[in-house]
Amino acid sequence: MTDRLIVVGGDAAGMSAASQARRLRPESELEITAFEKGEFTSYSACGTPYLVGKVVEDYEDLISRTPEEHRARGIDVRTGHEVTAIDTDARTVTVLDAVMGSTATHSYDELLIATGAKPLRPPLEGVDGRGIFGLQNLTDGIALRSFIDAQRPKHAVVVGGGYIGLEMAEALVLRDVHTTLVDQAPQPMTTLDPDMGAIVADALQGLGVELRLGESVLGFDLDDSGHVKAVRTGSGTVPADIVVLGVGVRPNSGLAQASGIPIGTTGGIVVDRRMHTPVDHVWAAGDCVETFHRVSRAAVAIALGTHANKQGVVAGTNIGGGYLTFPGVIGTAATKVCSWEIARTGLREADARKAGFETVAATVDSTTRAGYYPGSEPIKVRIVAEKVSGRILGGQIIGSEGAAKRIDVLAVAIWNEMSAGELVMTDISYTPAVGPVWDPVLQAARIAYREARGLGT
Amino acid sequence: MTDRLIVVGGDAAGMSAASQARRLRPESELEITAFEKGEFTSYSACGTPYLVGKVVEDYEDLISRTPEEHRARGIDVRTGHEVTAIDTDARTVTVLDAVMGSTATHSYDELLIATGAKPLRPPLEGVDGRGIFGLQNLTDGIALRSFIDAQRPKHAVVVGGGYIGLEMAEALVLRDVHTTLVDQAPQPMTTLDPDMGAIVADALQGLGVELRLGESVLGFDLDDSGHVKAVRTGSGTVPADIVVLGVGVRPNSGLAQASGIPIGTTGGIVVDRRMHTPVDHVWAAGDCVETFHRVSRAAVAIALGTHANKQGVVAGTNIGGGYLTFPGVIGTAATKVCSWEIARTGLREADARKAGFETVAATVDSTTRAGYYPGSEPIKVRIVAEKVSGRILGGQIIGSEGAAKRIDVLAVAIWNEMSAGELVMTDISYTPAVGPVWDPVLQAARIAYREARGLGT
Repeated sequence: MTDRLIVVGGDAAGMSAASQARRLRPESELEITAFEKGEFTSYSACGTPYLVGKVVEDYEDLISRTPEEHRARGIDVRTGHEVTAIDTDARTVTVLDAVMGSTATHSYDELLIATGAKPLRPPLEGVDGRGIFGLQNLTDGIALRSFIDAQRPKHAVVVGGGYIGLEMAEALVLRDVHTTLVDQAPQPMTTLDPDMGAIVADALQGLGVELRLGESVLGFDLDDSGHVKAVRTGSGTVPADIVVLGVGVRPNSGLAQASGIPIGTTGGIVVDRRMHTPVDHVWAAGDCVETFHRVSRAAVAIALGTHANKQGVVAGTNIGGGYLTFPGVIGTAATKVCSWEIARTGLREADARKAGFETVAATVDSTTRAGYYPGSEPIKVRIVAEKVSGRILGGQIIGSEGAAKRIDVLAVAIWNEMSAGELVMTDISYTPAVGPVWDPVLQAARIAYREARGLGT
Repeated sequence: MTDRLIVVGGDAAGMSAASQARRLRPESELEITAFEKGEFTSYSACGTPYLVGKVVEDYEDLISRTPEEHRARGIDVRTGHEVTAIDTDARTVTVLDAVMGSTATHSYDELLIATGAKPLRPPLEGVDGRGIFGLQNLTDGIALRSFIDAQRPKHAVVVGGGYIGLEMAEALVLRDVHTTLVDQAPQPMTTLDPDMGAIVADALQGLGVELRLGESVLGFDLDDSGHVKAVRTGSGTVPADIVVLGVGVRPNSGLAQASGIPIGTTGGIVVDRRMHTPVDHVWAAGDCVETFHRVSRAAVAIALGTHANKQGVVAGTNIGGGYLTFPGVIGTAATKVCSWEIARTGLREADARKAGFETVAATVDSTTRAGYYPGSEPIKVRIVAEKVSGRILGGQIIGSEGAAKRIDVLAVAIWNEMSAGELVMTDISYTPAVGPVWDPVLQAARIAYREARGLGT
């Protein structure tokens, strides 16, 4: 008898899982149907700011596999189909065909929920005005770019200084739109410690972005046609004919919740290490789930393409009859703004203390190449470590080209619970063209270790 | 009573040790004298090819601390002073002052030998002719550059296709010298597996370097004034008015050996993890020692500035009354030739088998950025893993900017004895500007793991 897998959501997690399950079980054994509300599958959501900024010309470049390509591989993808309800007892889903306007019920043997995340939309006056955009999926990116192409906005306000906010601010500057970034926090990138956030602020200003930090958005002024014309903050009014909301995302877990599938404290769907939910035959993967942070040991919901892809492979392997587990995350993330690469991993100092660690921290200024080698640029590395043991708990790096990938040294070190003292002596690479003889990461580790052991710098 | 530390050799290991000991013990407790045969201290030996190629204009840029600067920090540096003998019973060294031509005896309480490495000079006919250079220290680099400036050679032969050979070949091309690289091996960079070496060969040819691989050098033809005019190989004669020998280096351990200090099978001075030799009060650090390879578990002598600096800090800490150990190496190394970064860590497949492992290997071609992101360039990653366990034993990477530092992910993974399977799921960084969503290193790890477990690719 042929089993049937139904996948809800056709991007990274859903289609990685579908593809992996297909690899392990032929069509004669497992029929796979993927319902996708939108029109695209398997695209790079992380690439949408570059589409808006015209760094990437064609949206098709962001698509790694189209519905047709999936179908050619034996996955029945149905775009424009929204799953509106799940009956986990009857093992059925209710599906709305947006084009036909019809509803149908499909039964499953295994169900994978991969509904992703949705951007937070603060319940402020005027937030639904025209010209106010969230940015979560490719359709959003295409709409935003079309709006810029057609309307030629002059003044943009980006609300929120996280990854999306920063990347969108740069994209808007690239499109010659005067851009103001408003954030209620005193620094952009609150995922960084304050001294590192200050550098990001300088970089944004260098790019021409006007910063209004420590200001809350109170509402949006709309003109008679319902189009945004200004953003009201606690400190004044900022003219704007386009607004991008980058105030964060949350797991898009409403469908699961309405179906009685347990939701965690983070708002993400609860899954075990195989990406199985507590409900029989129901799996979940990607931005809609909560996962385990290996340093804080807390449940976290982090919307990130890397996790979604990995979790998709894990879910698909298990659904396909194999065995694979997702080991959790440590909060690694990176972005590039202008010529600055920004990367972080593990816990910020404040988070580490909240998690019960007593901490020390070290920040060093160094260079991306040997000082004498042409093209050597500044890089700043911060390491947070546990007092006494020197165990590395977190790291942050800001610098020019070559800076971000250095975070991976810290990520793998944190993964393995290495102490900063051990890392100092670890045999990592050196050649003058790619670093000083003491890599900036090792320099920071050395100071962090000495601080942890009370040896002074 | 004041103790006296004598340091033999004033570059990375020696002066790192002296500086570290000075930090821990004041001059009233510890007198430190460093004898350096040459005229420079604390310079970047790795930077000399860039000096020759005029990538770095001024040799002083390669010096991180001059003798005067060391003296200002309470280290009595004496350049132009060669230690010619050590009496470990009497605890004295015999020192030749090259300028005065005088010899003196100095007593020590602690002795650190940091005599570095010396380039191999094959005993071939004509090898001592003028225009034939080794390259180990800054003085060699200055001499070589002066020769090029004065003589304007037209045809160079570089003997040996290792790091120094490659970097010198590029430097000579930059100086508009037609350059031929001769190596008896069938590939340049024998520290890489053959398929990776082939890429290096292509890159060298792209740079305009003529390759004569699988050819042994038989001798050098000199003109009447004793100047080299050609290199004779097993396959013919190559005209050359300058020759650079890059056939490797060996530990410069003759002084130690003559003094009865044990030398290992590698030719390096035997030291324990604190960098202490088996002889009381005698320490050694840097290119002159042998150390422990954490993967093969064999003694190795690897001349590399990073190890020398670390070992210097370890020796200096212990001499200064602290406690610090050198944990060994895993063979990480990197270089840049033209726009290609080349990096390796751990064991090559052949070495791994020699060390008793049964191995699998995976090579992937990927890109340094997301495929759609501007400036995305090719990168090739090879991972050698242990069969069944999937433990990562070695890695090699060749690619354009951003490629080499990715080796550090593999280095830290090997350091922690991670399996390729675990690495696949490790939370390393991603943003389209610095990599695809599955980092090339993770792609290679995935295939290596599947090969190791017999799951197919």
